[in-house]
Amino acid sequence: MGGITARRVVLAGRPSGWPTLEDFRLEEFTPSPVLSGGLLLRVRYLSLDPYMRMRMDEHSAYAGSVGVGETMHGQAVAEVLRSEHPDYAEGDTVLAPAGWVSHAVSDGTGLRKLDPALAPVTTGLGVLGMPGFTAYAGLMVIGRPKPGETVVVSSASGPVGSVVGQLANIAGCRAVGIAGGPDKCRYLVEELGFDAAVDHRAPDFAKQLAAACPDGVDVYFENVGGAVWETVLPLFNRFARVALCGLIAQYNGVSQTEGDRLADTLRVMLTKNMTVRGFFNTEFVAEHYAEFLRVVSDGISGGRIKYREDVTEGLEQAPEAFLHMLSGRNLGKALVKVAE
Amino acid sequence: MGGITARRVVLAGRPSGWPTLEDFRLEEFTPSPVLSGGLLLRVRYLSLDPYMRMRMDEHSAYAGSVGVGETMHGQAVAEVLRSEHPDYAEGDTVLAPAGWVSHAVSDGTGLRKLDPALAPVTTGLGVLGMPGFTAYAGLMVIGRPKPGETVVVSSASGPVGSVVGQLANIAGCRAVGIAGGPDKCRYLVEELGFDAAVDHRAPDFAKQLAAACPDGVDVYFENVGGAVWETVLPLFNRFARVALCGLIAQYNGVSQTEGDRLADTLRVMLTKNMTVRGFFNTEFVAEHYAEFLRVVSDGISGGRIKYREDVTEGLEQAPEAFLHMLSGRNLGKALVKVAE
Repeated sequence: MGGITARRVVLAGRPSGWPTLEDFRLEEFTPSPVLSGGLLLRVRYLSLDPYMRMRMDEHSAYAGSVGVGETMHGQAVAEVLRSEHPDYAEGDTVLAPAGWVSHAVSDGTGLRKLDPALAPVTTGLGVLGMPGFTAYAGLMVIGRPKPGETVVVSSASGPVGSVVGQLANIAGCRAVGIAGGPDKCRYLVEELGFDAAVDHRAPDFAKQLAAACPDGVDVYFENVGGAVWETVLPLFNRFARVALCGLIAQYNGVSQTEGDRLADTLRVMLTKNMTVRGFFNTEFVAEHYAEFLRVVSDGISGGRIKYREDVTEGLEQAPEAFLHMLSGRNLGKALVKVAE
Repeated sequence: MGGITARRVVLAGRPSGWPTLEDFRLEEFTPSPVLSGGLLLRVRYLSLDPYMRMRMDEHSAYAGSVGVGETMHGQAVAEVLRSEHPDYAEGDTVLAPAGWVSHAVSDGTGLRKLDPALAPVTTGLGVLGMPGFTAYAGLMVIGRPKPGETVVVSSASGPVGSVVGQLANIAGCRAVGIAGGPDKCRYLVEELGFDAAVDHRAPDFAKQLAAACPDGVDVYFENVGGAVWETVLPLFNRFARVALCGLIAQYNGVSQTEGDRLADTLRVMLTKNMTVRGFFNTEFVAEHYAEFLRVVSDGISGGRIKYREDVTEGLEQAPEAFLHMLSGRNLGKALVKVAE
């Protein structure tokens, strides 16, 4: 391809606590040559997700750390610019673990073809991709919601939480969302059909949440941890199930409250005969991905599952958009548009 | 029966923190008349169990509180002194939820006949009773141990823990016990066949436990909580299962350590894709009690399951024996011999 000057965002340094723009660096680079069986990709959209914060730490339990000076990890929608791979042709649109880059060379590992005629390609990073599947696996496989039960989800307006609540509705449950701020709460109830939404920033959050769950909580899909976890804790019913998916409140090492908090959690888990299950979506892919695609595609085409995207333009804006997402100021799946 | 003067131990006041002898009172009483269909029981052995501490609190999640002035709850082995009940005859030995009493009147609810020819009747309060079944249900149903895995149990020399470790051995697992003091640890390894036992009072407890679990921890049967929980926490393998059975370190409301302990627990549960399941044995009785009796009876007769009892003489000694048991100073199932 000769003259391609590609760009990438690398981890400039490890954050202690909240990351800042100084922890990232935009670089130019020349993609390595495409070998036999390989592909050259041009990234169109990059996904920004909370798990990336964990990978910025030196010892990340979340499937590996990003080394200092290395490209930030991430899923992307990309166009095949050149292909020496039998399964892909120039012009194909693929889902690729390309990272925060404008161009990438791939040997085909982890690639999946997207059909732009079926759904907007960006849904492959959101509602019809890993965030949607994470919602599906945590709610349906771990949570096993029964009609009439109450399902609570935190970070409810995000790409995972919004699908959790809508699937809970489809399952015949009362769906209660926890989100930050009145706009997100309104969005959950008015646009997505949640039965109730509670603002965790409200001074009477605990009281509001209890009122929104008059029959207690049977399934909790946890994305946040910290003070939000502790507010849900007293509401659990016997045999409650918790799909422990994320702990965004804890990723930056900021303690939320004081006191002997572990004891309370263990006590409730014991006396309510609860099941708490930490998970990554990957373990459920083989068994459940096909049914997820069917259920959620049907939900979208039938109008029962809606989604929003929050698109930032330009790879160079990715760090700022990422910080924005971590602080919960976006509404909808956070994406960076890298190229048309 | 005319002249029976019965005795009972009542809750004299609610403890704050560790209970003391002043929280109990021995009383005489006259049993109410035996109605049609009823029985008069003479208690021979009374069981002392950690869950009783939770029932001394005003708001116990553990299946009800004992009211101040009311008889302490508990299972007992009793002899039928008089029966108007079609299923029981004078002289029968029964397991009964009689409480801390010398005599009780029953309508038959919760009674189970014991066959003194099959096994010593006291085993109905221990290895072949609820403690043994609790071990069985937590380990086999929740823990699902696979051959070659490492099973850790806390309070390992107690009536529940000792069965957990021996069942783990039968299941082909490495059984590691956590107990208080070198005598108990020796007992676990030398008498019960645990692969290793670690003294949680040792100054290098964490190091010893890690050394005893060179391949990490796959199943943890938790009876203790607090600092012991936190010491096991770093050792969990991916997909570890925790049967959360008791939290004896927390029952008296004494905080163990400082700091942000909940965050660590949630983080490990998430990143290790753990399953933590709080349980009471009662929910598993219908489905699993028969197989438990078969497996553990076979284990006892085949010499692969051993047990010890710690018998205190006299109902009036029950409070002291209970405090003794709570502080972990006994070895073997704590029983009070009330009558021959």
